[in-house]
Amino acid sequence: MQQVADRAGVSIATVSFVVNGTKYVTPATTARVRAAMRDLNFRGNVVARALASRRTRIIALLFPTTGNRFSPTTAQFFMSAAERASERGHHLVLWPVDPAGDDLDDLVSGGLVDGVIVMEVRMDDPRVAVLTSLEVPFTLIGRTRDSRGLPFVDIDFETTIVSSIDHLESLGHRRFALVLEDLEGTPMAGYAPHLRAQATFERVIAERGLVGQVAPAGAGSDGGRAAAEAILAADPDVTAVLVMKDDSSAGVLVGLYAAGRRVPEDVSVLSIASSATHADQHYPRLSTMVAPGRELGIRAADALIDQLDGVSDDLPHFLLPCTLRVAESTGPAPV
Amino acid sequence: MQQVADRAGVSIATVSFVVNGTKYVTPATTARVRAAMRDLNFRGNVVARALASRRTRIIALLFPTTGNRFSPTTAQFFMSAAERASERGHHLVLWPVDPAGDDLDDLVSGGLVDGVIVMEVRMDDPRVAVLTSLEVPFTLIGRTRDSRGLPFVDIDFETTIVSSIDHLESLGHRRFALVLEDLEGTPMAGYAPHLRAQATFERVIAERGLVGQVAPAGAGSDGGRAAAEAILAADPDVTAVLVMKDDSSAGVLVGLYAAGRRVPEDVSVLSIASSATHADQHYPRLSTMVAPGRELGIRAADALIDQLDGVSDDLPHFLLPCTLRVAESTGPAPV
Repeated sequence: MQQVADRAGVSIATVSFVVNGTKYVTPATTARVRAAMRDLNFRGNVVARALASRRTRIIALLFPTTGNRFSPTTAQFFMSAAERASERGHHLVLWPVDPAGDDLDDLVSGGLVDGVIVMEVRMDDPRVAVLTSLEVPFTLIGRTRDSRGLPFVDIDFETTIVSSIDHLESLGHRRFALVLEDLEGTPMAGYAPHLRAQATFERVIAERGLVGQVAPAGAGSDGGRAAAEAILAADPDVTAVLVMKDDSSAGVLVGLYAAGRRVPEDVSVLSIASSATHADQHYPRLSTMVAPGRELGIRAADALIDQLDGVSDDLPHFLLPCTLRVAESTGPAPV
Repeated sequence: MQQVADRAGVSIATVSFVVNGTKYVTPATTARVRAAMRDLNFRGNVVARALASRRTRIIALLFPTTGNRFSPTTAQFFMSAAERASERGHHLVLWPVDPAGDDLDDLVSGGLVDGVIVMEVRMDDPRVAVLTSLEVPFTLIGRTRDSRGLPFVDIDFETTIVSSIDHLESLGHRRFALVLEDLEGTPMAGYAPHLRAQATFERVIAERGLVGQVAPAGAGSDGGRAAAEAILAADPDVTAVLVMKDDSSAGVLVGLYAAGRRVPEDVSVLSIASSATHADQHYPRLSTMVAPGRELGIRAADALIDQLDGVSDDLPHFLLPCTLRVAESTGPAPV
């Protein structure tokens, strides 16, 4: 602003009055200030514009710095939300933050972003309290335990798990296992999708008189292989395995093969909340409950920008289940 | 600033003098302004700080909006660069941009970011010219055709391809294929890593009197499968396939199986510039030339922040080859 003031031959306060419209400035002086801003390419200066309008038109998608959690599904959320934000005149940037929320204050109270989308939500996510106290507009992709007063879009994990078991039960399966990421003792403990999936799985298994076990899997392919071994040790007659952990699904297949099981002749494998891209990178191609990543990304961007633009006072509560895509890894239960 | 001025009972110009240190202000007034800034939590205001210091301490990693190019290797570049930036007091954000560079002006001349890291570099990348003309500090992860005057860190694709062929030749292989992403007619045409890998592959094959073909692959698993079929049609005696395309490696395996070839007994498959995580999601686990994603991410962040801090006038030119990790998909050539 000093440069603009110097060039226009006015005080810095006068420049501020023109930019902010906070005080009357004569048309001649206003014209001189605007000319100086044009000459100095000040128009394009987002920082100055932010001071003027209190809007940067930048929104941040918060992503935890811990662990290697960036899956193809995450990428789909991000890219579709970014595309939608761009259509609506905003920039969406991916912002790595500490899962405890310690660095959020500096980010949002700094005035650099107009609003925030939060991903990888835990049941009692400390970031929600921090964002609420900072009074920054935000939307969750995910849900905390009690999300009544919070704007969110999320996968309907409850319906997704019920549909998964429906599909496999209709193929004659009665003995199930659910593979989830083992997050015990990590900063991501309490990750809401896992807890919702597990609770629904256990409820449906009990209600329908089926046999079921939950197997936590460690990292990567080795974790999947170990989980398959543990599942077969606990129930050698298991015929249906649900895998809600992209990086371990290949390992689960290998673990089953190593124990002499064929897929899907002996054991059906269903990938949960994943993508067709991921499914097709397996042999056999994985039957999958495909996550509505693209639609949820768009909805999340819309929900936040609606808040920012003040076009809606509604808190969006939008749930969408995964959709079944049958490929080669599920089939009739062996007789 | 108006609020600070009001609270301190001084003019906005005086606040500016205190913040910028551009003019003498009495100690008593300075103390009053600083107290008002503290009261209003002004210290944390990055926008104001940016106006004051011309630094936001935010750097952007530019990533093309086109196509679904976000691989685990990309995630590793990003997360390691973000971690390093954080250690050095900067925020690294992932910023989706048009590959043509049309929206760069608004981003960088806006003053929001102090500098830029560019990924997914093409031989004649229009973004480099735009960034140069905007005079914003930047570093490439990748190299243009002529990168002498540009700061870059990159995978040494030339050495990587030579080492790949060395490894397979030492196992007795003489008939090769290289699978690359088919980018003809897309905005990513001219993607530098492919052109460098292809040129080196063709040169080494010719120099050593080997047999070799280059097979462009379409998207995903289907693209890989089709590439495998095309390779076997062109050379039924091929025994070694290099795959430089993560999303197609599973399809290449399936295409080979479908044609009755075993891996590695009949055909060895070597994954190029990929990761151990990706390799272990295959059956058999892929032998891989592992990309130095973590080290390059750190180097890229360091190179840019060194520029910003003015601690180095050197343009970094840093090349690192992939390292061989032998798993289960390569073996002796059949006799």
